[in-house]
Amino acid sequence: MVLRTIRVGVLAASVVLTSWVSAAAQVDALPSWNDGAAKQAILDFVRKTTDAASTTYVLPEDRIATFDQDGTLWVEHPMYTQVVYALERVPALVAAKPELKNVEPFKTVLTRNREAIARLSTGDLLKILAATLSGMSVDQFKAQAKQWLATAQAPRWKRPYTELTYLPMIELLKYLRGNSYKTYIVTGGGQDFVRVYAQEVYGIPPEQIVGTAGATKYGYDKAGKPLLTKEPALLLNDNDAGKPEGIHLMIGRVPYAAFGNSTGDRQMLEYTKAGEGVRLGMLVLHDDAQREYAYGPALGLPDTRVGAFTQALYDEAKSKNWPVISMKNDWKRIFAFE
Amino acid sequence: MVLRTIRVGVLAASVVLTSWVSAAAQVDALPSWNDGAAKQAILDFVRKTTDAASTTYVLPEDRIATFDQDGTLWVEHPMYTQVVYALERVPALVAAKPELKNVEPFKTVLTRNREAIARLSTGDLLKILAATLSGMSVDQFKAQAKQWLATAQAPRWKRPYTELTYLPMIELLKYLRGNSYKTYIVTGGGQDFVRVYAQEVYGIPPEQIVGTAGATKYGYDKAGKPLLTKEPALLLNDNDAGKPEGIHLMIGRVPYAAFGNSTGDRQMLEYTKAGEGVRLGMLVLHDDAQREYAYGPALGLPDTRVGAFTQALYDEAKSKNWPVISMKNDWKRIFAFE
Repeated sequence: MVLRTIRVGVLAASVVLTSWVSAAAQVDALPSWNDGAAKQAILDFVRKTTDAASTTYVLPEDRIATFDQDGTLWVEHPMYTQVVYALERVPALVAAKPELKNVEPFKTVLTRNREAIARLSTGDLLKILAATLSGMSVDQFKAQAKQWLATAQAPRWKRPYTELTYLPMIELLKYLRGNSYKTYIVTGGGQDFVRVYAQEVYGIPPEQIVGTAGATKYGYDKAGKPLLTKEPALLLNDNDAGKPEGIHLMIGRVPYAAFGNSTGDRQMLEYTKAGEGVRLGMLVLHDDAQREYAYGPALGLPDTRVGAFTQALYDEAKSKNWPVISMKNDWKRIFAFE
Repeated sequence: MVLRTIRVGVLAASVVLTSWVSAAAQVDALPSWNDGAAKQAILDFVRKTTDAASTTYVLPEDRIATFDQDGTLWVEHPMYTQVVYALERVPALVAAKPELKNVEPFKTVLTRNREAIARLSTGDLLKILAATLSGMSVDQFKAQAKQWLATAQAPRWKRPYTELTYLPMIELLKYLRGNSYKTYIVTGGGQDFVRVYAQEVYGIPPEQIVGTAGATKYGYDKAGKPLLTKEPALLLNDNDAGKPEGIHLMIGRVPYAAFGNSTGDRQMLEYTKAGEGVRLGMLVLHDDAQREYAYGPALGLPDTRVGAFTQALYDEAKSKNWPVISMKNDWKRIFAFE
């Protein structure tokens, strides 16, 4: 009888709680978004997939949303943060391996000559990435990246790179999670690099980061303690077709929503939209030169970046009903620090 | 003021709810376990890592537990279920590709001669696995495996393979989840195969299955719809050292608890136990010939299986304080259907 009374009490409280949450839901969950087609597409999608009365209702445990990182969740211009990290790691790398001092491309990086560094080929960059992202234990890498992130500053903003996240997208992540969506990052960037800060910056735990991943090798240190060493061998190139492949490997099912900003996200959006029921695929367009950057042929502007928002991508978005998010028009605020 | 009143109401209900949950915790969460060192090790571990007053308290979001599947969560003797599946898929495979009819090892499998099949080499088995587990789309594979699982029966038990799970381990999975542990399967078996039934059988979703994984290839069907095709290339061999490597790839942090039953789980247990604070590593010993099977050199019995519980593993378990679970002595019941 006591148990019954408690149960009734809990039930009553639960009803109160539900009404309270319901009332709270009337509050705008996306305050940094202007009213418009992009915001409406998000609200419609969530309503259609979470309203139990909807024919397109999705069970909470099936709700998966994937986000590209660079250019979608934070600034990617003029250089991916991870590439900046790799370049800035070179002095420490050469200090540990002095034989690299006179070897290219490390020699050029050590000159700190920006123009010469900007002229490095993709092959050179890959060499620098491999040398700075492998050869150490997983724990050592984490400590190195953490230390750099705590002190490095983005030149234009004079702030840590981890503050260059887009406030509207942070609101979107929280809004989706508040509606039982499990949020994942699916990035062409290094999986282990993003894992270092994703929990703190995005509220996304390590196991929900799908990224370009190298092999690791299990072994033991001198004291016999197990450790994993980061190897230069590539296991998953999480770009383009690699994104749906990585999603299958790490998540094992098709997302209900996917967000990107470049040709590297095209296949992820196609794959997501091909799922049954209501699916959402959206692209962030960088068209705000004043508050952030404007780039990409869709704007008639030159774009020399890998993974650009091309005219072909813009056309595919239009023809397949992937709403495009204009940073200039759809976002009231871009950064939390503004 | 109304909001304040509601908040106080919710708080009061929350206190009631907490006491109620607390009272419920007094009920034995592991009723199929006999009292003994193994059960006590589990209870102690959970208490030490979930009691906020404990110096070894672990934040709920950091609680990860990993489980081997074959021989740890369900029966692996006399043959891994996935190998049975691969062998039984051969007729359908040959029907689709008649050119394989007179090619070994498919020819031998078609004879249904058990002794001849038992003599197939590991290389032959790998050929059969590759042919039956790749070459189709991810969705086709899922449908094929699902259909087989719905009808196939284990000869000794005359029941579907999915009923051959160990009840005490199912209780353990639920008990850990009830204490905010995120439960993962980390199996040498095929990741996609286990994902077909893990949600229903173990309550574990696809993204929490780490297993041996082949590559997939993104493409389009004739109608232009995106699909992923299973390729014969191996991406992750999730056995032995591959287990901690797979855990890093898919989870990105060291588990607090790991459960296995063979030499293939050794490195996963070493890796888990090397983490800071209180960690639990346990091994299931098959020593119950009457209710299940007894095998492994630890029992002085011959064992021709891959991934056996060897004397060396037994010695390592003893020296490193990995509690061994005796099926005979520690488990009151083995199967739910008993």
